[in-house]
Amino acid sequence: MNALRYENQNLSVVNMPKLSADGEAIVRVTLSGICNTDLEIARGYAGFEGTLGHEFVGVVESVSEARAPARAFSDLSKPSLTAPTPAGLPVWGPRVGLLTPGQRVVGEINAGCGACDLCRSGDSRHCPNRTVLGIVGRDGAHAEFLKLPVVNLLPLPDEISDNQAVFTEPLAAACGILERTSITKETRVAVIGDGKLGLLCAQVLGTTGARLVLFGKHRHKLAIVAQRGIETITIDKAKMRKREFDFVVEASGSPTGFDLALELLHPRGVLLLKSTFHGATKVDMARIVVDEISVVGSRCGRFAPALELLKTGAVDVESLISEEFALTDGVRAMERAADAGMLKVLLRP
Amino acid sequence: MNALRYENQNLSVVNMPKLSADGEAIVRVTLSGICNTDLEIARGYAGFEGTLGHEFVGVVESVSEARAPARAFSDLSKPSLTAPTPAGLPVWGPRVGLLTPGQRVVGEINAGCGACDLCRSGDSRHCPNRTVLGIVGRDGAHAEFLKLPVVNLLPLPDEISDNQAVFTEPLAAACGILERTSITKETRVAVIGDGKLGLLCAQVLGTTGARLVLFGKHRHKLAIVAQRGIETITIDKAKMRKREFDFVVEASGSPTGFDLALELLHPRGVLLLKSTFHGATKVDMARIVVDEISVVGSRCGRFAPALELLKTGAVDVESLISEEFALTDGVRAMERAADAGMLKVLLRP
Repeated sequence: MNALRYENQNLSVVNMPKLSADGEAIVRVTLSGICNTDLEIARGYAGFEGTLGHEFVGVVESVSEARAPARAFSDLSKPSLTAPTPAGLPVWGPRVGLLTPGQRVVGEINAGCGACDLCRSGDSRHCPNRTVLGIVGRDGAHAEFLKLPVVNLLPLPDEISDNQAVFTEPLAAACGILERTSITKETRVAVIGDGKLGLLCAQVLGTTGARLVLFGKHRHKLAIVAQRGIETITIDKAKMRKREFDFVVEASGSPTGFDLALELLHPRGVLLLKSTFHGATKVDMARIVVDEISVVGSRCGRFAPALELLKTGAVDVESLISEEFALTDGVRAMERAADAGMLKVLLRP
Repeated sequence: MNALRYENQNLSVVNMPKLSADGEAIVRVTLSGICNTDLEIARGYAGFEGTLGHEFVGVVESVSEARAPARAFSDLSKPSLTAPTPAGLPVWGPRVGLLTPGQRVVGEINAGCGACDLCRSGDSRHCPNRTVLGIVGRDGAHAEFLKLPVVNLLPLPDEISDNQAVFTEPLAAACGILERTSITKETRVAVIGDGKLGLLCAQVLGTTGARLVLFGKHRHKLAIVAQRGIETITIDKAKMRKREFDFVVEASGSPTGFDLALELLHPRGVLLLKSTFHGATKVDMARIVVDEISVVGSRCGRFAPALELLKTGAVDVESLISEEFALTDGVRAMERAADAGMLKVLLRP
């Protein structure tokens, strides 16, 4: 099967042997999305070698008996307390025994060891021995097939198209913000960055009814969320809004975004750090102490709230699709995804 | 009157004119304490010129009608929800009209403008136009007399000696941790740094019953809190406790302390930043995002919980006194306070 791989400092589409299930589910990938993390891996920044990709939608090819049922993502079966799903709606639960070949699925990307304290407490996302699809120790989704533990897979409702479902993972990451903090209609919220992540974060935060502004550089990107009634401001005008916000999401991935976030925050405000920067970033710690700022890291989120948002049409993800390439053109697609002004680039096997 | 001043890059004891009340209270200082912030100001790091000192105990000399009663620290009159005072005990309230000359007092160091949103919401500690005793725009406590708004002063109960009361401000700063987070008996807590601030933080956190360890370099300093039943570990052995703690207080004031704090934290743990570092500190942001750490800044605290701890003897501050100097020997006292192994150096006018 074809797979887009980064190996020996080289990115290429390689013909790989057929996957062996090894007690996991095998999924035929329908569509996968290129994330900035993929670009960083292909620049050699992340220390991963293998098949790239962690955003996908696919169809179950085969389901094996799970070797290690203890590694189930038990946190997925708990109702969300903070996610913006209307009370009483079903939350996707454990999926062992529920999956059959031919079913459309998306998949959570962290696979825990099942044995450590964190896994046993239901937090496999932070297991120190976890593998992560296309990021840590596990071949990824830019391929004709992938494999994941059965418990990682969630069946897709018919209402969600493939073009929408391929955004489940990054949308879940945006929803993860609401797992880490409480936001009300009175909260003054800013999002910095109008890339894919910033646009998703702004839309998710928009569902809370908070007083929200998105700061970004690109008018055509800002327009996507402005159409949904979200206030947008170009970043050169951000300094006029200093110390105005209770809650700022840094989703630009740049150290200047971090500095701007500190400037926008009211004393005792919360800076939610959504994007990772490479290497060490210089931070004015005195500002954090004197103004008693909280800096809160946020990485992955649970898929269930994201699927709910997609199902109800509460967020627009399809406007974020810039281009689609065949998987065999994966190297060119990666180059294109790195171009300025691009949003989501998709790969179709 | 004599005052220890930093001016024109020079530290000296200067004979100053008598203070004019200008609608504030004048306090005759009995005893003042040298803080690391004073040392930093005297190195030219903090941009303040004038009389140093913000830790003091004194006696009311005169009380004027407050010019601007709106600048009252109304947050001081609210009962504390998080401070470790037994329920039902009185919390020190507004003090206008209650102070008379001759009364022993301590004083909160931030004086807000009284007009901004923050002051009006009761948070003068973060007023952007505030003055701060001996730190920002207001002569300090290493002097025979100081002045502060009447509402900043708290009468001292007889049970608290001058040697104890002079620790009210730094002890309040340690109590401020409990304003910023919730800690239970199950919380695994570490404090990094066995300086004055670290020893006070450890003792305050000890009152919560949490599972607590203090990491430090100096056996004789660690011994002060070990005597109170707190576990202490020398910092060279800290790496054996990696990823073990839910809550780490960085009170060493060094960037290596910050890095160690990140290493000690469990995923989704809280790093409470108590000490300020100079300039920009390099931080591994990716670690904060991937492990979903919260970095929480904490500066000043309210005095009421600190006075309660002193009154009940729940913390030992007198063991932290290293030496006492006459105010006229203030320059030598500052040099001594900077010596390795020293804890609190006091000045007596």
